[in-house]
Amino acid sequence: MPGHDLLIINATLLADPGLGEMRPMSWLAAAGGVISGIGGMAEAPAQTASCRIIDAAGGLLMPGLVNGHCHGAMTLFRGLADDLPLMRWLTEYIFPAEARLVDPEMVYWCSRLAAAEMILSGTTTVADGYFHEDAAARAFCDCGLRAVAAQGIIDFPAPGVPDPGRNIAAAADFLAAWQGKNPLVTPAVFCHSPYTCSPDTLRRAKALARESGCLFFIHLAETKEEVAQIMAKHGQSPAGLLDSLGLLDESTVCVHGNWLDAEDIRLLAASGAGVVTCPESNMKLAAGTASLDDLLAAGVPVSLGTDGCASNNDLDLFQEMGACSRLHKVASHDPTVLPARTLLEMATGGGAKVLGLAGEIGCLAPGMRADCLIVNLRRPGLIPFHSPATLVYAGRGSDVSTVIIDGRVIMEERRIQAFDLDETLARVRHLASKLKQSASRAPRPV
Amino acid sequence: MPGHDLLIINATLLADPGLGEMRPMSWLAAAGGVISGIGGMAEAPAQTASCRIIDAAGGLLMPGLVNGHCHGAMTLFRGLADDLPLMRWLTEYIFPAEARLVDPEMVYWCSRLAAAEMILSGTTTVADGYFHEDAAARAFCDCGLRAVAAQGIIDFPAPGVPDPGRNIAAAADFLAAWQGKNPLVTPAVFCHSPYTCSPDTLRRAKALARESGCLFFIHLAETKEEVAQIMAKHGQSPAGLLDSLGLLDESTVCVHGNWLDAEDIRLLAASGAGVVTCPESNMKLAAGTASLDDLLAAGVPVSLGTDGCASNNDLDLFQEMGACSRLHKVASHDPTVLPARTLLEMATGGGAKVLGLAGEIGCLAPGMRADCLIVNLRRPGLIPFHSPATLVYAGRGSDVSTVIIDGRVIMEERRIQAFDLDETLARVRHLASKLKQSASRAPRPV
Repeated sequence: MPGHDLLIINATLLADPGLGEMRPMSWLAAAGGVISGIGGMAEAPAQTASCRIIDAAGGLLMPGLVNGHCHGAMTLFRGLADDLPLMRWLTEYIFPAEARLVDPEMVYWCSRLAAAEMILSGTTTVADGYFHEDAAARAFCDCGLRAVAAQGIIDFPAPGVPDPGRNIAAAADFLAAWQGKNPLVTPAVFCHSPYTCSPDTLRRAKALARESGCLFFIHLAETKEEVAQIMAKHGQSPAGLLDSLGLLDESTVCVHGNWLDAEDIRLLAASGAGVVTCPESNMKLAAGTASLDDLLAAGVPVSLGTDGCASNNDLDLFQEMGACSRLHKVASHDPTVLPARTLLEMATGGGAKVLGLAGEIGCLAPGMRADCLIVNLRRPGLIPFHSPATLVYAGRGSDVSTVIIDGRVIMEERRIQAFDLDETLARVRHLASKLKQSASRAPRPV
Repeated sequence: MPGHDLLIINATLLADPGLGEMRPMSWLAAAGGVISGIGGMAEAPAQTASCRIIDAAGGLLMPGLVNGHCHGAMTLFRGLADDLPLMRWLTEYIFPAEARLVDPEMVYWCSRLAAAEMILSGTTTVADGYFHEDAAARAFCDCGLRAVAAQGIIDFPAPGVPDPGRNIAAAADFLAAWQGKNPLVTPAVFCHSPYTCSPDTLRRAKALARESGCLFFIHLAETKEEVAQIMAKHGQSPAGLLDSLGLLDESTVCVHGNWLDAEDIRLLAASGAGVVTCPESNMKLAAGTASLDDLLAAGVPVSLGTDGCASNNDLDLFQEMGACSRLHKVASHDPTVLPARTLLEMATGGGAKVLGLAGEIGCLAPGMRADCLIVNLRRPGLIPFHSPATLVYAGRGSDVSTVIIDGRVIMEERRIQAFDLDETLARVRHLASKLKQSASRAPRPV
């Protein structure tokens, strides 16, 4: 294994979490950000002077987690308004706060906070969508986090795009600025929803995405009310509308999908479009529960996402795995649905597939990008560790001791190495105090 | 404030989580395990040489959490069998493993592991029920954890009580051994359920509890099947059966209660009996969802519990609060139900009330026992911290930096001070390897 620049030794290896097989006493080597070899310690490669060694004794080495849906900058709105009906929460708290505070500086620093929170809980790739996504993309690559960064498109005046007539052009500018520029950042477009974007906007956004060879994201069938609204306006379901507009294909990612019926699932499966489920956000806003078992049975690629901190209110995918499995078990009165391996697959390889990165991330094998994490199995709450299912039902982000992205050690022994965390925290605290002041000056919502 | 032996300074104080008011820059003093004073830093008491000082700057000081239901020793069975139907899980995996492995040594060490996990996640009082509960009670007080320890009663041969005809006598021995012996341990009895204990056993157990002035616990209405079974056998619901046997009063604690109907809730409310809900366990086993909103509206005292690690699979009450609120929001299609304050109350003062300890623990005030914790508000996932709701929706056990029980510093800066954690982990790992060996030798479940 000549030329490797990173060598992890003495690990219990979970190379492909969807398969569940653990191999004790293993090593993994990387060179130039790519996994160059994996094996048992009996045949460990040389520890050269130029090679960084990480001793993972007592730890489980596994692929980094893939967060299929996030609005990173919304960390600022964590806990701003909880326990409210969805429309009141959105129109009286979130939209006004966004109108007052969202600018490139806010998006940059609050996306950095999100990056820190995700790295500290084992996420190595995030699919993010927000306004001023250029600032978010800068934040993620400055933090060393892999990102699919999608510029938001909506038919209303939005931060950075006061004239909705320019929303497609702004997205095109964003794609041009980021395509092929940074190995960590894959740009994309994010149409907010079929109820905030006209059919014409949706079609033009998808055409732009097709031209650029990039992903097209959309919030879809999140609430029952949305389905009723689209039905009343267009005479078909949200998924049916996308299908009739020719928008469903392997590069389309539908976020939420809580109210997809059997015909919608058939359309998605036939098209190759993916779904991202965000159970904690959907539970907290009482938006609904996706038919994940049916989606998976139909062969729809399914990924797991946290959503933003305004509705979740955290970005911990370990906790999201447990919540997702438990929710679907109790909702279907069947403790056998969504077993632990399915969740581990959704949070790793499944996420990679939905994001079009299946050849690069999602499992640990030679030739894949070196995106991985080490879970500390010495924490009392993970003892005994009979199987990887314990990651799903008892693991949490804080069990992650070390995170490596693209071969670079981003966090080690729970300390972020790649950037100055304190500066980020100070900046966000300052923005939070501005938010509080402006909220107290704003007219009270009626 | 002369004579205090512990002084916590510079804290943001959340004295009564159910009220939600936070007071910045506060101090709390304790003497002999009792809170002797609370105030603002402008009038902080003297820091004497004999007084231990804890600087809580950047931290939130709040009452310790109360875990209303646990089988601590079942940490050994964490992840032994997941994703299975309840009856297969119980009869093919848990009961056989218990028959092979449960003895006083196992209960002692595995209860210590549970104590460590609970202390590390902010629990300061646990209501535990298991076989060989004498060993569990020793474990909890050796670890400095406050416990209501309840000896299990079941009409089958059980670990430590091979002759079920002696189950009440064994419980009486346990009560006699522990009543008034240790300020941290309150003994009680735990009848397994109305389907594993005869009416006669239930009546005799309750009579013993009444004589001894102690709590009577019972698993009640956990599954739909249990309700059907009791209905078929006794012509009434499980709660109705308890009522007709004269077992419901303020010292009866019903665990789970997922299938209580309106009449059951009326019976409980009229009697003063309490309910402990264990949402993560109930979700994972698909057992059902309690009507918590109705129970609370009827005035039934409700506490939050983790259940044991075989079904949860962790003992983190912070995570349990978030899961409970989110589950009930999505199940009722209403994001306003079970707001954060209700959960905080259930996990502190509500738990104290159900356990008959309302005058001693559950909030921070002069005269109460000094059971408290400090949450590290500097963790990125808790920033910004607009309100205590963030504890429920983004907090987790690992955010707890310091735990004080009965005025004694049990954990500081996430290091357990009160006992040797490594010895406990080594003992449980040894037992886990015995479990694995015996499982591989055991005949395969059919």
